[in-house]
Amino acid sequence: MKITRRDLIKVSAATAVLGAFGGASAAAEDPLPSWNEGASKKAILDFVHTTTDKSHPKFVPPVERIATFDQDGTIWVEHPLYTQIMFALDRVVALAPKHPEWKTTQPFQAVLSDDKEAISKFTMPDLEKVLFATHTGMTVDSFQAIATDWIAKAKDARWKRPYTDLIYQPMVEVMQYLRDNSYKTYIVTGGGQDFVRSYAERVYGVPRDQVIGSALDLHYTYNDKGQGILMRPPKLLLNNNLSGKPEDIYLFVGRHPKAAFGNTAGDQQMEEFTQAGGGATLMMLVLHDDADREYAYGPAQGLPDSKIGTFSQALYDEAKSRKWNVISMKSDWKRIFAFD
Amino acid sequence: MKITRRDLIKVSAATAVLGAFGGASAAAEDPLPSWNEGASKKAILDFVHTTTDKSHPKFVPPVERIATFDQDGTIWVEHPLYTQIMFALDRVVALAPKHPEWKTTQPFQAVLSDDKEAISKFTMPDLEKVLFATHTGMTVDSFQAIATDWIAKAKDARWKRPYTDLIYQPMVEVMQYLRDNSYKTYIVTGGGQDFVRSYAERVYGVPRDQVIGSALDLHYTYNDKGQGILMRPPKLLLNNNLSGKPEDIYLFVGRHPKAAFGNTAGDQQMEEFTQAGGGATLMMLVLHDDADREYAYGPAQGLPDSKIGTFSQALYDEAKSRKWNVISMKSDWKRIFAFD
Repeated sequence: MKITRRDLIKVSAATAVLGAFGGASAAAEDPLPSWNEGASKKAILDFVHTTTDKSHPKFVPPVERIATFDQDGTIWVEHPLYTQIMFALDRVVALAPKHPEWKTTQPFQAVLSDDKEAISKFTMPDLEKVLFATHTGMTVDSFQAIATDWIAKAKDARWKRPYTDLIYQPMVEVMQYLRDNSYKTYIVTGGGQDFVRSYAERVYGVPRDQVIGSALDLHYTYNDKGQGILMRPPKLLLNNNLSGKPEDIYLFVGRHPKAAFGNTAGDQQMEEFTQAGGGATLMMLVLHDDADREYAYGPAQGLPDSKIGTFSQALYDEAKSRKWNVISMKSDWKRIFAFD
Repeated sequence: MKITRRDLIKVSAATAVLGAFGGASAAAEDPLPSWNEGASKKAILDFVHTTTDKSHPKFVPPVERIATFDQDGTIWVEHPLYTQIMFALDRVVALAPKHPEWKTTQPFQAVLSDDKEAISKFTMPDLEKVLFATHTGMTVDSFQAIATDWIAKAKDARWKRPYTDLIYQPMVEVMQYLRDNSYKTYIVTGGGQDFVRSYAERVYGVPRDQVIGSALDLHYTYNDKGQGILMRPPKLLLNNNLSGKPEDIYLFVGRHPKAAFGNTAGDQQMEEFTQAGGGATLMMLVLHDDADREYAYGPAQGLPDSKIGTFSQALYDEAKSRKWNVISMKSDWKRIFAFD
């Protein structure tokens, strides 16, 4: 069963009623029930208590309560391939009748013949060709409709479930807990901003204006009725990765975050910039060390190397030296998914 | 006396108490007390009633309730010069000791000798030189401190008051009324995003992440302590004017606004894009036709021409043909400023 926002509201109401009669148990009050007791859970609870306690010297006024979350590998599954790449590959197939030349042109030929070996070896320029061919040349409204339709129907091959079921329940709880304490929760993803916007509200409770991602340089023009429309051209405005993350966070938010959650070197600068804001801050990185329940990759701590979502030993050492918290999926998380 | 947000809360509480005893008068309940009765006020009230009435076919779900406001000339005074230009001119004077060459270099020489005639004839390249010299080359945090300090002290020459007193009380009421009805109110300004952010929360009740403006292409680097910092380089990322407004609104918000307020051709595309979203929409333009209480300029409707905040007759005709609402400051507004 997936816990919906409505369920959470019901739980809150029930907790409040129990509380009024002095009958609330510690378990009912735990805002992070999918987390095992330990340093990671304690760090989150301590951070929220500190920053919301008016008598604490590190109290943070509500207007400054900003928390940022990377998406792929931090709040949902990114293996074996980023979900947005799966979307792009499916779109190549759907659009193929309009592009007969793709049958004999790479990288499209590999996609159309479902050559998994070749697809797994795609270079960045290959991926860019696939992404631009499937993500541009339409209005922003058309793209929203296409992405919304796809994400409602597509399923992950391992779990046979919609990709949006593969969000990490412990992280959903952290987002909800932060929002219950007047934090604004932003998704800050290297993925496409408008792709993530097509489901972020429904799945994470994050409204579209709190999704920061890689973004195209939109072009305003007119349709044949003289109405103003925005076209998606094959030109990137924001590459929301590495240094792009703090740059774009400031562009959108105008502040240092107080808390930041990531899982790769692409999130390092976001973590640094959060810490550099001073006062009470929380920097966390998710380590995928649970091959049974999800996937195991690093190569930090001797885990297998990975092209998708690399967590290097250098990043691990950096995290330790800067006192960032590394979340072990295996030991910190009681369950991974809501359906577990 | 300036009405603060705290005062508004007090008024709300008082109204609620009166209401509970059945004693609330119609006047106490008017959300737009600084507006004269007429087509403009009626358009705003009708729009809010329609979009928040669940039984109405044009009901708008809360998550889609987005309203955008141009700043200069729409929610505060822009004559005789944009406030941000006054800031830049003051900064040239403050920084002059570090730039001895400015004494003999234009456009700085004109500023340092307070040559109002020459300043009034500055070209766009002149203004760009002044803006880049005063707004770049420091961290984002330093710039916030500089702008916050200036806006707290600087005063307008005509009213002898802080610039932040020169906000239009009727528009503050519209913003508050919209927020009371679950609208998010965004400032969408051609001015510098980070300049406006330095006072928007305090003055308009608009948090930093709801200020969209012209923005620099920030550069992430490190200070000598190894902390992540963002520098402001002399390079524009977003020119938030004309077509830039709908492009940037979509970048930040991911939706068409439902309501948009402007006052010049620089706002036309924002109004068009709002209307193109369909359903219930509200497009409004402020016409400065009150020389006694503020300024009068157009040249729409035979008003004097202006280099700052031009409202052309072509824009006026466009507004009429697309059924946008033109607000007459003279006849629609009971008072202009909170201190009137």
